[in-house]
Amino acid sequence: MVKRYLDKLPLKKAIEILEEEFKDLRAETEIIAVDQAVGRVTAQGIKANRSAPDFYASAMDGIAVKAKDTADASSRNPIILKKGVQAVPVDTGNPIPEGFNAVIKIEEVNEVDVDNYQIEKSVPVWNHIRSIGESVVKGNLILTAGHKIRDFDLGALLEAGVTELEVYKKPKVIIIPTGDELVRPSKELKKGELVEFNSAMVKSALIKWGAEVKVRDIIKDNKELIKKEVKKASKECQLLIILSGSSAGRKDFTRDILKAEAKILFHGVNIMPGKPILTAKLDDKAVVALPGYPISALLDNYLFVRELIYLLQGQKADQFDQEVVEVKRKISSDIGLEEFIRVNLIADSNGQKPLTAVPLKRGSSAMESIIKADAILRISENKEGLAPGDKAPAVLLKSKAKIKKDLLLIGSHDLSLDLIRNEIAKRGADFRLKLQTVGSMAGLTALRRGESHLAGAHLLDSESGEYNISYLKRFFKNKKMALINLVNREQGFYLKKGNPKNISSISDLKNKDINFVNRQRGAGTRVLFDYLLKEEGIDSTQINGYNKEEFTHIAAAAAVGRGSADAALGIRAAAEVIGVDFLSLTKESYDLILEAAMLDDPRIEYLIKLLREKEIKEQIKALGGYEVNASGSLKILEL
Amino acid sequence: MVKRYLDKLPLKKAIEILEEEFKDLRAETEIIAVDQAVGRVTAQGIKANRSAPDFYASAMDGIAVKAKDTADASSRNPIILKKGVQAVPVDTGNPIPEGFNAVIKIEEVNEVDVDNYQIEKSVPVWNHIRSIGESVVKGNLILTAGHKIRDFDLGALLEAGVTELEVYKKPKVIIIPTGDELVRPSKELKKGELVEFNSAMVKSALIKWGAEVKVRDIIKDNKELIKKEVKKASKECQLLIILSGSSAGRKDFTRDILKAEAKILFHGVNIMPGKPILTAKLDDKAVVALPGYPISALLDNYLFVRELIYLLQGQKADQFDQEVVEVKRKISSDIGLEEFIRVNLIADSNGQKPLTAVPLKRGSSAMESIIKADAILRISENKEGLAPGDKAPAVLLKSKAKIKKDLLLIGSHDLSLDLIRNEIAKRGADFRLKLQTVGSMAGLTALRRGESHLAGAHLLDSESGEYNISYLKRFFKNKKMALINLVNREQGFYLKKGNPKNISSISDLKNKDINFVNRQRGAGTRVLFDYLLKEEGIDSTQINGYNKEEFTHIAAAAAVGRGSADAALGIRAAAEVIGVDFLSLTKESYDLILEAAMLDDPRIEYLIKLLREKEIKEQIKALGGYEVNASGSLKILEL
Repeated sequence: MVKRYLDKLPLKKAIEILEEEFKDLRAETEIIAVDQAVGRVTAQGIKANRSAPDFYASAMDGIAVKAKDTADASSRNPIILKKGVQAVPVDTGNPIPEGFNAVIKIEEVNEVDVDNYQIEKSVPVWNHIRSIGESVVKGNLILTAGHKIRDFDLGALLEAGVTELEVYKKPKVIIIPTGDELVRPSKELKKGELVEFNSAMVKSALIKWGAEVKVRDIIKDNKELIKKEVKKASKECQLLIILSGSSAGRKDFTRDILKAEAKILFHGVNIMPGKPILTAKLDDKAVVALPGYPISALLDNYLFVRELIYLLQGQKADQFDQEVVEVKRKISSDIGLEEFIRVNLIADSNGQKPLTAVPLKRGSSAMESIIKADAILRISENKEGLAPGDKAPAVLLKSKAKIKKDLLLIGSHDLSLDLIRNEIAKRGADFRLKLQTVGSMAGLTALRRGESHLAGAHLLDSESGEYNISYLKRFFKNKKMALINLVNREQGFYLKKGNPKNISSISDLKNKDINFVNRQRGAGTRVLFDYLLKEEGIDSTQINGYNKEEFTHIAAAAAVGRGSADAALGIRAAAEVIGVDFLSLTKESYDLILEAAMLDDPRIEYLIKLLREKEIKEQIKALGGYEVNASGSLKILEL
Repeated sequence: MVKRYLDKLPLKKAIEILEEEFKDLRAETEIIAVDQAVGRVTAQGIKANRSAPDFYASAMDGIAVKAKDTADASSRNPIILKKGVQAVPVDTGNPIPEGFNAVIKIEEVNEVDVDNYQIEKSVPVWNHIRSIGESVVKGNLILTAGHKIRDFDLGALLEAGVTELEVYKKPKVIIIPTGDELVRPSKELKKGELVEFNSAMVKSALIKWGAEVKVRDIIKDNKELIKKEVKKASKECQLLIILSGSSAGRKDFTRDILKAEAKILFHGVNIMPGKPILTAKLDDKAVVALPGYPISALLDNYLFVRELIYLLQGQKADQFDQEVVEVKRKISSDIGLEEFIRVNLIADSNGQKPLTAVPLKRGSSAMESIIKADAILRISENKEGLAPGDKAPAVLLKSKAKIKKDLLLIGSHDLSLDLIRNEIAKRGADFRLKLQTVGSMAGLTALRRGESHLAGAHLLDSESGEYNISYLKRFFKNKKMALINLVNREQGFYLKKGNPKNISSISDLKNKDINFVNRQRGAGTRVLFDYLLKEEGIDSTQINGYNKEEFTHIAAAAAVGRGSADAALGIRAAAEVIGVDFLSLTKESYDLILEAAMLDDPRIEYLIKLLREKEIKEQIKALGGYEVNASGSLKILEL
């Protein structure tokens, strides 16, 4: 068997190895102007060069007085103070004239005439006078070494007479992308080409952490070329990142190169995604080879490279912002691997209990799911998954306050949902609508578990011909539920342009020459397909491709569009997006389902109002295949 | 009485007024390259231009096969697959050749010879094959409008064929600093001049929130000049900030100018600091006049200007990261004012209870206290302060994880503490030492309340001549406490250079011509002074300036240095910092005090080890006036 060795280091151990190996690796330092210093890290402690104020100063707009002159003043015995002699006008910040020792606020002074003030209250000595060093004191340590400078630090530094300071230079990082199949981002790709976007993603994160990053041109899978570039680059940076460099496949030369040229620290960590990370030390420089799958590269960048960027600036990386969350379904996980699972989070109605985590798609190349995620759930290596009710930490990708405001909809996919979701954001509403598209049945299951606020479903009851209601009776017995009509929409066949195989009905699919692609189990569209087959008396075994599943309308249409299938069932709007022919077969109702108690929720009210808006209805209609007369209409069911 | 009107708007109401008034104020939009877009905000929803992958692709390095060819394979019945016919080598990401429908991982394949592979396991159809759209699906909404782009968003955008996108331009902000007394940061200040640093502080925060900021030259308090600049600047920006523009004093013209030229929205909000903020609308542009005091300006910038910067980019500002914390002392607060109080936070030993908030200095011009703060405690306007045990929200300025790691020392001031604090940071320890310098007695009180981990004290018992122990007996009855010697140090008089008043002993202070400045009640140095007076049989009423208090050694030395006092008692090191003469009078012991149970804490172990280090002792000694033989020595007391 072709086997390449991968370590199985625990995460913590792997980070310790990096910290230990590079503990003395530091970026050089430089002297910069304070007003350019935000986000930079101090290389030395910084002391105040002067006190502020360094004279006794008025803390108010008013008059400076001698406290003893005011001793007898009261509203019944107002006292007159002679301007220039007993009282001197001062503004906030002005020095207190010699011999004066208190300030009276302008609001408490009556200017009798040009020469005299009247006061009605005595004031104590030092009243409204700022002490020397009230704000900053000469010689005091303002900032320690290893401090990342914030906006308000600037204020204290400048006030303390510090106008320049020694900081770490931005750590120099070079990224080398490698891979025969990779091309720079562009509009047109040839078959087999993939866009190289990991470098842009990794680079942006490194810049955020304080690094200065150069990305080299993509290098083909050629050992000599890669070796040359690695050796050259390692001389010009403190940290070298090789992209798609950590696999152990046929053309992955990075390991061999580093084995020959450098000291390999580890190759393989007990985490998923991100397992095959490779690290090495080359002439005291750090080398990290990241996996090619984007989610793996992203995670390893956050877990390992981030530590190094901080270390280079004399800091320890902050702990991630974690929150203990609960799961309401079984989530599998391999024992011996710490798994990082993208999740949405939802808060219960009173916000007291832990947030509930709802897993998104797991693949290490599922970019949409990282964009959609609220957090990354961590399942530790000594656990064989989580059971309903289990708790685990999750690294937050958004603020908790924001997450708590959001609405989560889990269910069937419809293009109008994207439109509505965008509209809510665009109008600056105080919440966001988040979508997980998993199919109608999985949507109802999630809603029943308390994993979502809303389900989206278009489930045909083959007995009654009605949509959703009979399913709700099964799922939500004895509950009071609400249905909001989203749209009524056309379902039909996606066909290749010009319909080369002349498909005109369900029964044509029996033709062995025709490849169908189905939707996943539990999808409303699959339920509909089964109903249509039954009506025609066709058995599923007669359909070539009945078991090949796609997960969304657009993916099904795309499968037809790319030629891997001749037909698929789905909604018209997706045909328009992908550019395939569409043969209309039937109409169906798509509803949003929620507990009736949630109808008072301002977010739901907002949503219903939006669905009833003429302008929105027009926009949905324009997507193709939609009837919107009933959109936003409401049914309440006691089940 | 000279009175200027100030509104007393609740904070929430004030923000609502701004949101309502400027709800349609938006920065223009522009099209930019995706790889430049991190931190920018989308002006439109963004859909995927293509699916990725848009062909069936191998998910592994291995061989593409026809699943049915593998059906009978097992370890007892290995099957040979002919290269090129039944098996084609593929790398991760390669397209699956026509007619093939599964991939076997390279690790599970045995290359028998150049023409044949052997396998020992069957594989299902579609094994290790990535579906079309597995990562992103053409036509799906990737990002909504109003989304601030993160590093990993770039990845999804580029993969989806989006190479440029429409974002809001950076909102244009102009800052106009005003004030006769203000000068640009520089090393030398004339008496009465203040450094203008608010603009640098405000600017940096605005840039962080996404704005493009120009700072104008400082304008003198001249109505015509300010008016001219305001009118000119308002044409060149969307948001105009006038610094030191919101007071209602003698020379504060901003209100008059805005009253004449613009629509004033509000002047004065029920908050402290930050009360006198002034906002206006000038030709649809937003104008905000911030108070001159830096903490007030800083707070108003975060509370109000931040909202506007987000609004200009089609977003709502995130809620602040708040945490409910507990207080262990009475904290006063005016009813009718929402107060924002800088605090340190400490965690209890098991980390389960709410964090405890310990207030720092409150003045609206105390920059050191904002630098030191972990959070800003909010006391709502309907509360008359907080009592011990009360809870209130606090806006975190650091990550909670970091705060929980820190050690907090409250007590007397000593210069070696800054040195140690910096050393801990510089060495990259996993914790930071935080200081609140409040005097010895207040330090012990804080420790007893559970507000700190350590107290720092040098309290002389006038009976026994011993330091600290008799006080501990009073403060920590029946407890087991530990004392760590920090230093032994010289105490003496700070005197003007050359000692012009010929002060050579305590009794010289009785001379009416001599102005003394004392330390605050509860300070160890004041206890020492009282002891020295008693020894000489001098009554405090005989001392001119006995009641004038400074709060640190350096502030006391500075008062002498600036000429406002002739003598003060304090430690030698501060004399060296400020550059005044020093007359040594006595030696004293400064100890760190903690519960003995904390001696196992790795942070305390670290601290003791550091204090015992030769190199550190040398550094402390070099500060002047220190004996370090006992530094780091330990006493445990059962009280």
